[in-house]
Amino acid sequence: MKELLYEGKAKKVFCTEEPEELLLEYKDDATAFNGKKKEAFRGKGELNNKISSKIFTLLEEKGTPTHFLKELSDTEQLVTRTSIIPLEVVVRNKAAGSLVRRIGIEDGMSLHPPLIELFYKNDDLDDPLINDRHALLLADVTHKELMAIKEEALKVNDVLLEIFEDCDLSLVDFKLEFGRTEGGNLLLSDEVSPDTCRLRDKQTGAKMDKDVFREGTGELVPVYENILQRLEGATCAK
Amino acid sequence: MKELLYEGKAKKVFCTEEPEELLLEYKDDATAFNGKKKEAFRGKGELNNKISSKIFTLLEEKGTPTHFLKELSDTEQLVTRTSIIPLEVVVRNKAAGSLVRRIGIEDGMSLHPPLIELFYKNDDLDDPLINDRHALLLADVTHKELMAIKEEALKVNDVLLEIFEDCDLSLVDFKLEFGRTEGGNLLLSDEVSPDTCRLRDKQTGAKMDKDVFREGTGELVPVYENILQRLEGATCAK
Repeated sequence: MKELLYEGKAKKVFCTEEPEELLLEYKDDATAFNGKKKEAFRGKGELNNKISSKIFTLLEEKGTPTHFLKELSDTEQLVTRTSIIPLEVVVRNKAAGSLVRRIGIEDGMSLHPPLIELFYKNDDLDDPLINDRHALLLADVTHKELMAIKEEALKVNDVLLEIFEDCDLSLVDFKLEFGRTEGGNLLLSDEVSPDTCRLRDKQTGAKMDKDVFREGTGELVPVYENILQRLEGATCAK
Repeated sequence: MKELLYEGKAKKVFCTEEPEELLLEYKDDATAFNGKKKEAFRGKGELNNKISSKIFTLLEEKGTPTHFLKELSDTEQLVTRTSIIPLEVVVRNKAAGSLVRRIGIEDGMSLHPPLIELFYKNDDLDDPLINDRHALLLADVTHKELMAIKEEALKVNDVLLEIFEDCDLSLVDFKLEFGRTEGGNLLLSDEVSPDTCRLRDKQTGAKMDKDVFREGTGELVPVYENILQRLEGATCAK
């Protein structure tokens, strides 16, 4: 019997026999608008487990320290135990979603250099946008750690742009979370998947991510399957 | 006949015969919650004109370049013409107001070093909180100008803390606006008054600012009169 440590919107976290390792189980649930919209899609957990495992493996190869250790089953992966820093680090290559509504710029506007935004992970407060000084106050990080997190987020963006370019996908924006090991090392944690990235087909501009669920404009599972196929095709071709 | 250039919530701005100078006329209107609450208080315009003139004079003496030139009448002052940078620069010594609601920290919590927040001046968007990168995107300022603005805001805080300390008032937070002259110099603009500062009586903790109107807990004009008297007493005593 696995001991449940924490259940999030899209994953369960279990203890393992190794104190420094955790098991992540990807759920079939999709949520949007801070959990106000919710639905389960059979197969989604497996797809995100496989997509995120693949992407974390590629990020590790390119030099980003991550919590990912290995896939354990269709819906489970083994990761290094970290305590999650309560920040959502959003990197935007183009304007979309909440940014457009919040500051009134045009949807699709290119952002050079990429725009980084920090949100305080707090469901009761609806994950508010914060600035660097708020982050130091709220997230128990040092200035040095915060700068390292932002720098790493931009490096991850460079690698992801390249990965998705090979899949004929345009990376609009994405969200990262970082965790701290007991030894104090920062590791990229959580997941990178169509739940946490905005992706567009380069040829048609079609939305290929959780926006199809958020906006009710398409079938989630076939879109996520397509992303996994493209990732497998692109990495096999190398 | 003065030519009206712009009418804001609390002031009118007129052209003068000098192209590089403008006339500000302080109105009796008080507004809160982005104009949703509004009321006129006879004498408020005169009080804020006098309070802000006094404070800008003291700030200039301490080395802050401001737009203030001189008082022209009870409700009018002459200022250097600037184009206003669309940022509200908020400096907080203690947590209060929107900050407490937004990030869930305790009302009255001390903030060391003082916390700076930037808001994008845009009524349609309800003046959203932004980070430095949004400011560069939206406010047509350079990184160097933004850093200079923040540094100046902290210097202004030091001077205001001292001024209000002499008046037996605690400065909780305040909002500044900066403008750029045609020659490209940054000048502290707009006003500094109980409309734009949160002030507390050091002995009783009583609110001595626009919060009495915002929260409907007291008479605005007697409070503003008291602030002016204290400022005149403190500066005469020197």
